Formats: sequence, structure tokens, C-alpha cells
Amino acid sequence: MNSDAFMARALELAQAGEGYTSPNPMVGAVIVRDGRIIGEGFHARPGEAHAEVAAIENTREPIAGAEMYCNLEPCSHSTPHKRTPPCADRLIRENIRKLYVATVDPNPHVNGSGIAALRRAGIEVEVGCLSERALWLNETYFKYIQTGLPFVHLKMALSVDGRIATRCSDSKWITDGEARRQVHELRHRYDAVLVGLNTVRSDDPQLTVRLTSGKQPWRIVLDEHLEIPPEANLLRGEQRAKTLIFTTPAHDPARRARIEAGGTAVQVVAADPQGWVDLPAVLRELGSRGISSLLVEGGAGVFTGFIRQRLFDKLSIYIAPIIIGAGIEAVGDLGVRKISQAVRLQHTVYQVVNQQIRVQGYRNLEDTFRTLTGNVPCLQELSRISAASAR
Amino acid sequence: MNSDAFMARALELAQAGEGYTSPNPMVGAVIVRDGRIIGEGFHARPGEAHAEVAAIENTREPIAGAEMYCNLEPCSHSTPHKRTPPCADRLIRENIRKLYVATVDPNPHVNGSGIAALRRAGIEVEVGCLSERALWLNETYFKYIQTGLPFVHLKMALSVDGRIATRCSDSKWITDGEARRQVHELRHRYDAVLVGLNTVRSDDPQLTVRLTSGKQPWRIVLDEHLEIPPEANLLRGEQRAKTLIFTTPAHDPARRARIEAGGTAVQVVAADPQGWVDLPAVLRELGSRGISSLLVEGGAGVFTGFIRQRLFDKLSIYIAPIIIGAGIEAVGDLGVRKISQAVRLQHTVYQVVNQQIRVQGYRNLEDTFRTLTGNVPCLQELSRISAASAR
Repeated sequence: MNSDAFMARALELAQAGEGYTSPNPMVGAVIVRDGRIIGEGFHARPGEAHAEVAAIENTREPIAGAEMYCNLEPCSHSTPHKRTPPCADRLIRENIRKLYVATVDPNPHVNGSGIAALRRAGIEVEVGCLSERALWLNETYFKYIQTGLPFVHLKMALSVDGRIATRCSDSKWITDGEARRQVHELRHRYDAVLVGLNTVRSDDPQLTVRLTSGKQPWRIVLDEHLEIPPEANLLRGEQRAKTLIFTTPAHDPARRARIEAGGTAVQVVAADPQGWVDLPAVLRELGSRGISSLLVEGGAGVFTGFIRQRLFDKLSIYIAPIIIGAGIEAVGDLGVRKISQAVRLQHTVYQVVNQQIRVQGYRNLEDTFRTLTGNVPCLQELSRISAASAR
Repeated sequence: MNSDAFMARALELAQAGEGYTSPNPMVGAVIVRDGRIIGEGFHARPGEAHAEVAAIENTREPIAGAEMYCNLEPCSHSTPHKRTPPCADRLIRENIRKLYVATVDPNPHVNGSGIAALRRAGIEVEVGCLSERALWLNETYFKYIQTGLPFVHLKMALSVDGRIATRCSDSKWITDGEARRQVHELRHRYDAVLVGLNTVRSDDPQLTVRLTSGKQPWRIVLDEHLEIPPEANLLRGEQRAKTLIFTTPAHDPARRARIEAGGTAVQVVAADPQGWVDLPAVLRELGSRGISSLLVEGGAGVFTGFIRQRLFDKLSIYIAPIIIGAGIEAVGDLGVRKISQAVRLQHTVYQVVNQQIRVQGYRNLEDTFRTLTGNVPCLQELSRISAASAR
């Protein structure tokens, strides 16, 4: 096995924590001696051991002089709310010979200082192995840790002619069971799922993970005047306590009291000039609550707001081979008059899902990954390609 | 080489006539003796030798006792306008030992009689080798020969949110140069290209083959009141004589006289109850003029008409990774209220074209291929799959 294969194993281990590590990243670590893995570990959830320490503690052979592969730079800091000691110190103490990391950790408390500490202690550090895979794996973390705002992923299910529903608001089902199962998997991986009031009214969704096993995400509703029907699925069942309704100061206090009495939280934020819930305020509030990733499932008004205000990071569209004709459009007015003003997705990837196609792309890789861009050659390359194709 | 490989060669030869054989099919033939190809031929254009005869005449060795591979059943008829003698007679005369054909010829004048004549003469005939590939190759022929109506292929270029243009009618360019080159290749393969008046007004297209070499198709415009601008590209240049404007009885005769004086033909057909050019009448007229295949390039009103009236056979959509938001929708009202009423494409195939994806599908394979369905096991299978996925 070469270094790529060991790092690939670290990434595979990291993924075992998917859906449970937030707001921490997914991290895996592999300890290697004489070309043989002697220990493995991953970060399972906040408060539990970091991957490096988990790997050390899972190793029964001597570690001094061994190599470690880890997809993220080891932490080097102790801040008031941090529950685990710095991993860099532990690696130095264990006398690791060499460390391979995929990328630096752009966390302002780390950001190269973990690598610097190791190098000062005489440990060789090589950065960049499988950096691109490491990047996509923790894309939500990289955004959140640098901005305090959740990574925003818009998910749409469309007909080939761009409709999310018929004119009678029928949308069940544009896509098939496999596409919907994939969406439930996405929900598991995200801290929260968001919809607008119209979607609650027309679909009465549960926004839970049912078609696959996993963690239940927070459920977020944008509801300017708290008009959510009291019998809505979102206000019922166990998950109603993991549900948060954003409203504007123009809401009716009696409705608020009734929703809160039912066990669901209401958060008032400013209204934007059109009277809608102010989306930047929503994102700041979610970020401050530790929600690092947000899956936006509609409807059209909500999609339009996030796209027009350039507040999304990623877009996934499931396109089904059906034609609906006049119906509910996915995206409303963005003020685009010329094709050159259209929002052009970057790093677009297509995947066939049974009879459907899934389109995935990013709004702006540099906005999402920020300072990390400088550390990942492949990402710089991607940015260049995207910029060139936009011309 | 086995029989599939020889038939594949026949199909490859057939394709050399692409764009030039209409209203005849593309046919290739290979003569084989002792596992070795001794002669090849294809049908180049109407009036010239059929593939079987071309192959025979290209062969310098004795043919008696050899095998022939041909993607279509040999003709067996002599009708008033037919310019070539029956191929079946020639094969019998040449004393071919065995013939492999991919499919029968559903031409009502043939439809199994060529095969029957050969068998009566003691020639072994095997049907079905690479029948699926043979089917897609001549899909326009199979429709036209059985219905007298052209095969209708709708081609759209859309943003991921289903727009064909911005609200200001800007559509240049949603797709990139490679997608547009593919469209020019399609034009070469089709007998005629059709647009509506709005597309002429907003894009002033030439509808010619420029980005690739090939044959210039007929250019068809639907123009209810002959409001096409006199300076439109379609009314100028050499190709204006290969341009046909369909209008309704409500047109202005002075405009008609001016257009005809300029060298472009006008055809009056009935108006439908909404006052639009009656599309079935357009297709009948084109069919009677020997136009066996029609590429419809827009705009929205034209697409909507062909889809609502179930008059298209195939749909190709190039989807670009851009979001336009409010703009010109691809397809208008189809009367679809429930998702179950949506038009569900059959045999959908996806192909990545640079940053874009091309979606291709059929409206109804049985409507398009008709009696041929019974002869092509793979097509029966496809129909079953499509029917099942629609449920």
C-alpha cells in the first residue's frame, strides 16, 4: 500500500462518523509501521476522542517511530468550550515519526499551528495527500468553521421542464423511491432541514429520516406570520421539540404562544424589505445555535430567496423524465436579463439515478472554502476551470 | 468475426448515408465467404443503388454460396415511383446462400414479403441480429414509412431551472459550442427544421448547418398571420428557396405575395380552434412533400403545441448548469393537474456534454415504431420497462 491507500482508509474511517460529528469535522486516522496498519480510529461525535487519539488508543503495538495518516490537521489549541486536549501534543508525546494530512484545518484556532507545532518537535509533516476527497467530505465544516454560518445545500426535485409541482400543487411524486431515499440520506448528514410555509401547506412534510437509518435533523420552517396549520405534521410527534419556526415581528403573539405551548420553538428575526423572514438573520441564528449545515427543500419562494441573495453553497437537482408544462416553477425572479447574468454552477457533476439524473454543483467554491483554497491545489485548479467555463 | 461483428459493419456502412438517404432508410450490406468480408456497400441517396446491390457490384469474387448481412429486409416490390429493381430478386439471381437481416422492413410494400420471397427460393434468412441498433439508426424511417408523417424530434436548450431564455428573451448562449455543434449535426440528419414566429423574431436564426459539414435541411416556420420580418435571415440567402412558411387562412395576401416574390414558399393550412396553425395539417403536408423527419427547435408555444397534442416522437434537452429564474418557460399549459397526468418519457438516456447534460427520450415507442414492435424483441422489452416505470 502507498500513502494514497492509507489516506483513503483514513477517509473511509472518517465517514463512519457522518451525520454525528457536527459541528466538528469527520476525521479518520491510520497508524502505519513498516507498510502495515497497526491502528485505526475516527471521531465519532463531539466530546468524544478525536480520530488521532482514538487511533492511538486502538493500537496494541508500540507507536513511537510509526507514521500517521489523518485527513485533517491535528488540533493544537485549548479554548474554553473545547472538551478534548490538543492532538498535536499527544502525537509529539507518542513520538510519531511522520504525519500525512490531507488538508490544513482552517479553524482560526488551528490554521497551520498544529502542523507548525509538530514540525518544531521534529516530526515530519506532509500535507496534500488526497486533499480533494478530504475537501468534499468536510465541505460543510470548512464553510462553518470559517464563517460561523451553516453550509447551505438546496435540494430540488424537478420535471425536465423545470417544475416542482403541477398548477394544482401536486408533487407526489416527481422522483422515484431511490431518489427520495437519497434525500433521506442527505437529511441524516445535515444538521437541519428547512422549508417555507407554502411547502408545509401543500405537502405537510415530516422532514424526518425514514427511508434509511440515521439521525433526525432539526426541522426549520420560515413562516412570516405564523400561519402554519396547527395540525401540521411538523408540530406533532416526538420531533416537534427539534423543530424551529422562524417568523417576523409581524406575527400574531397568540399563535406564537400556542405553538410554543405545543412544544415547538419560535424564533423572531427581522423581516426583509419585502416582508419575508430575513435569510441572513436566519443563517446567523442557526450558526449561533451550532447548526453547521442546512438542507433547503423548498418551495419556490424559499429557493428563489437563497439563490437571489447568493446565500447557498451547493445545489442538488433531481430531474425526472417527465414533462408537466405550466405548473409551479422551481425558481422565481432573480433579476436576470442577460444569460451572462445567470447563476452559473461550478464543479457540476451528473449522476444517473434510475430513470432520473442528479445535477450537483456549487455556487462559488471560493466563497465556500475561503482560505482553504490556497492549501488545496486541486481546488485552485477547479476554480480556474470554473472561471474559464463561465467566460 | 461472428455474425454480430458483420452486422455491426453493415450498420457502420449504413451510417455513411446519414442525412442523404431520406425518405429512404440508411442501409448497409456486407458479403461474407468463409468468415471473410468479400464485398461491402451502402445506400447513398434515393435513386442510387440499394445497399445489397451496391455490395454485390463492389465484390470482385464469386458471390454464389456466400452470406450477406444487411440491416434491413431487402425490398421485393416494383411500384410506379420506385426507381430501383427489387433487391430480393437480385439476391436470388446471385444465389446467395444465407441472408442475415436486423429487422423486417415495415414498408407496407415489403413487410416480410422480401424475406418470404428469399425463403421460397431456398435462401436461408435469419432475422434479429443487432435489431435494437438497427432500430435506433432508422427511427425516422420506421415512423414515416408506416404513417406518412415525419418523425418529430423536439430539441431544447434549457437552464437547470427549465428556462429557454431570460425574461428579456436573451438565449445566447445557454449551451456551449459543443452542444450547438451537436445540434448542427442533428440538422444535417433531419430533412427539415421547424421554428415558430417568436423564435424568428427574438433570435433571427439561420437554421443552417454551419458548425459541422453536412446537408442543409428544409427550414419551416409557423406564422399564423405572415408577420415574419421581411429582413429575417430565413427569407434571405441561397437557402430561402428551401424555406417554407406555414400560415392560416387569416393571413394577409399582400404579405404572402411579397414573401413568395422573394423566393420563399408559403403554405396555407387550417387554423386550430385557438387560431394557431393546425399542427396535424402541417405534419400531413410535410409528409406528402417527402419530408420524413422534422427537428423542432422552438419556441415555447411550438413545443407546447407538439407536446400537448402528443405529436412528437423524441425529445432531446440540453441542460446547462445555470439558473436563470423568472424567464421564458420551455413548455406551457398541458392541462396537467396531477403528476400522474404528466408526459413521461420512455427509454430515457443521459449523456454528459462538457458542463451540460443531454436528456433524450421518446414519447411512446409503440406509436413511433408501430408494427415493427412485434419484430424486435428488445423493443417489446423496452415497452414493458417503460410501462412498468410509468406505473
